Amino acid sequence: MADAKAMQRKDPQFRTRVADSFARQTIMTTIGATLTHVAPGEVDIALPFRPDLCQQHGFLHAGVVTTIVDSACGFAALTLMPAGAGVLTIEFKSNFLAPAAGDAFVARGRVVRAGRQISVVSGEVVARSPAGEKVVSLMQATMMAVTGTDGVKD
Amino acid sequence: MADAKAMQRKDPQFRTRVADSFARQTIMTTIGATLTHVAPGEVDIALPFRPDLCQQHGFLHAGVVTTIVDSACGFAALTLMPAGAGVLTIEFKSNFLAPAAGDAFVARGRVVRAGRQISVVSGEVVARSPAGEKVVSLMQATMMAVTGTDGVKD
Amino acid sequence: MADAKAMQRKDPQFRTRVADSFARQTIMTTIGATLTHVAPGEVDIALPFRPDLCQQHGFLHAGVVTTIVDSACGFAALTLMPAGAGVLTIEFKSNFLAPAAGDAFVARGRVVRAGRQISVVSGEVVARSPAGEKVVSLMQATMMAVTGTDGVKD
Amino acid sequence: MADAKAMQRKDPQFRTRVADSFARQTIMTTIGATLTHVAPGEVDIALPFRPDLCQQHGFLHAGVVTTIVDSACGFAALTLMPAGAGVLTIEFKSNFLAPAAGDAFVARGRVVRAGRQISVVSGEVVARSPAGEKVVSLMQATMMAVTGTDGVKD
Repeated sequence: MADAKAMQRKDPQFRTRVADSFARQTIMTTIGATLTHVAPGEVDIALPFRPDLCQQHGFLHAGVVTTIVDSACGFAALTLMPAGAGVLTIEFKSNFLAPAAGDAFVARGRVVRAGRQISVVSGEVVARSPAGEKVVSLMQATMMAVTGTDGVKD
Repeated sequence: MADAKAMQRKDPQFRTRVADSFARQTIMTTIGATLTHVAPGEVDIALPFRPDLCQQHGFLHAGVVTTIVDSACGFAALTLMPAGAGVLTIEFKSNFLAPAAGDAFVARGRVVRAGRQISVVSGEVVARSPAGEKVVSLMQATMMAVTGTDGVKD
Repeated sequence: MADAKAMQRKDPQFRTRVADSFARQTIMTTIGATLTHVAPGEVDIALPFRPDLCQQHGFLHAGVVTTIVDSACGFAALTLMPAGAGVLTIEFKSNFLAPAAGDAFVARGRVVRAGRQISVVSGEVVARSPAGEKVVSLMQATMMAVTGTDGVKD
Repeated sequence: MADAKAMQRKDPQFRTRVADSFARQTIMTTIGATLTHVAPGEVDIALPFRPDLCQQHGFLHAGVVTTIVDSACGFAALTLMPAGAGVLTIEFKSNFLAPAAGDAFVARGRVVRAGRQISVVSGEVVARSPAGEKVVSLMQATMMAVTGTDGVKD
C-alpha cells in the first residue's frame, strides 16, 4: 500500500540519525531493547524476555510491548524525514492478539504513508519461542515531523 | 456517563485484589510506579520522573506513559469484576497532547461502561511540575473479564 | 482538561463558517442530520432515527453513528481555527457501548486540546428514548488545520 | 499473520448468512453499496461515488468511508463464526490517508485473529479513478460474537 515515491529517504544519513536517536532513548537501555533493522520506512527493535518487565500473570506487560513498537514506528517514520526534523507520536492504537509469552520479542514498524508532516505507520510485535513466531500485538500509529520546535530534533 | 448500577462492585475484596495484582506487576517496581487510589471503577497510579525512562528528547517515553495508564485502566475495570475473574487488555488508543515533561506523573483510569465481559475505560496521564498539572495523554481502552482461562486470575 | 487560552476562537465569524460548511456536507441532508449547537470548541449534531439507516438488527448502523460524531468533532475543532483554515480528519477511534436504539441521536464534539495544526477532540453519541438518554458511542479523534492546500477551505 | 486453523469457517452456510445479513443492512441500500466478495475471513463491499454522500470539500464523507469498511470488517469476522452467532462492533480506529476522491470505492475487511468471542480485523478502503487505485483509509477493528443475546443473530 506504500507509495514508492513517498518512501524515498530525504536524509542520506538516516541510518546514523536513527541509531543516534535510539541510543538517546534511555528507556531502551533500561529494558534491554536493541535496534536490529533500519531501512527506508522500516525499523525493527528486539527485546529479550525479562521477568522484571511483566504484568500480573507473568507475561510481558502491554505497556512494554507498546514501548518497543511505538519506538519502531516512530523511527520508521524518521527514516523518511528530512535532516533536522524531529519525530513525535501524535497517537497510536494497539490490539493485543495473544498473551505476550516468549523468549524474545521483535517490534516491527512499517510506514504506510509518509506525508510532509503526518506519517501513518503500521506496527506489530511478535513473540519468539521454541514453538515459533506469534503476533501478539498490532499497532496503527500517527507520527508527526516537527522542525524548529521546542528543541525537538533527531 | 457511567451507569450507577453497573458501577457496583461485585467483589467486596476488590481493594485487596487490585493491590495484590498490582504488586505482581513486576514492571511497576522496575519503573518505580505506585498504586495511589482504588475505588469502584477508579484507579490511580503515580510515577516520579526518572532519567532512565525517557525518549530521545528527555521526556518520559510514550510507552512508559502508556504502561501506567494501561494498568490504571485495567485495574479500574477489575474493581467492578466478580471474584475469580482476571482482566486482560483487548486494545487501547492513546493521544499524546503534550510532551511528558514534569517531576511526577499520575495515571487515572475511570470505567465508562462495565459490562459482564467487556468494559470500556477512559484514562488520562497528567504531568505535575511547579507550574501545575497538565494532561499529557488521553486513553480510550477496552478491557475483558476472563474466567477459568489459561490460569488468568486476579 | 481544556486549556482556556487555547480555546479562544481565532475567527469571529466561526458560527457562520461552521453553519456554511455543515450545509455543504451533502451526507447530512441525505441522512437528515441537523446542526443544533455551535460554541467555541463545541458542536452538536442531531439525527432522528430512520429505518433506512440501520444495520442488520434494526439499530442505527455504527457507520452512521460515526458520521455524525465525526462531523461534530471536526466542526468543534473548526470553531477554534483561524479564518481561511480548513479542517481534515486525520484519524478517529470509537467504542460502541450499547446498541444504537432510540427515537433520536445527538452527537457531541468537544475539543480537548486545540493546537496550531493538530486538535484532539472527544466525541459522544447519545440515544434518546422515552426511557431517557443513553451513551451509545465514545470517540477520540485527531483533526488537522490545513491552509492553502488542495482547495481545502471551510 | 492469520492463523490458518482459526481461519476455518464454522458454518458451511457462511456465504448465504453474510449475504442475508448484508441485505438487512438498510443503510447499504440507502447509500448504494453492494457486497462483492465473501470468502473465509474476507469480505469486500463496493460503493460508487455519489454527490449526496459527501463532506464539505466534495469528497466522500469519512463517515461513509467508515460505514462500508465497518460492515466489511464485521462480515469478514462473521464468515468464521458458528451458525447462530451474531456479530457486533466493539470498537474501531481509522486513519485517513488521502481525500476520498474517486469514481468508486472498495472496502476490504480481512480477519487477522479469529477468537471464540473476539476477532481482530484489518480494513482498508481504496478509491478507484482513471489514475488507478489509492488507499484512502485504514481500519483496525475489534468484533465480538454474541450468542443468544438480545435477539442479535446473523
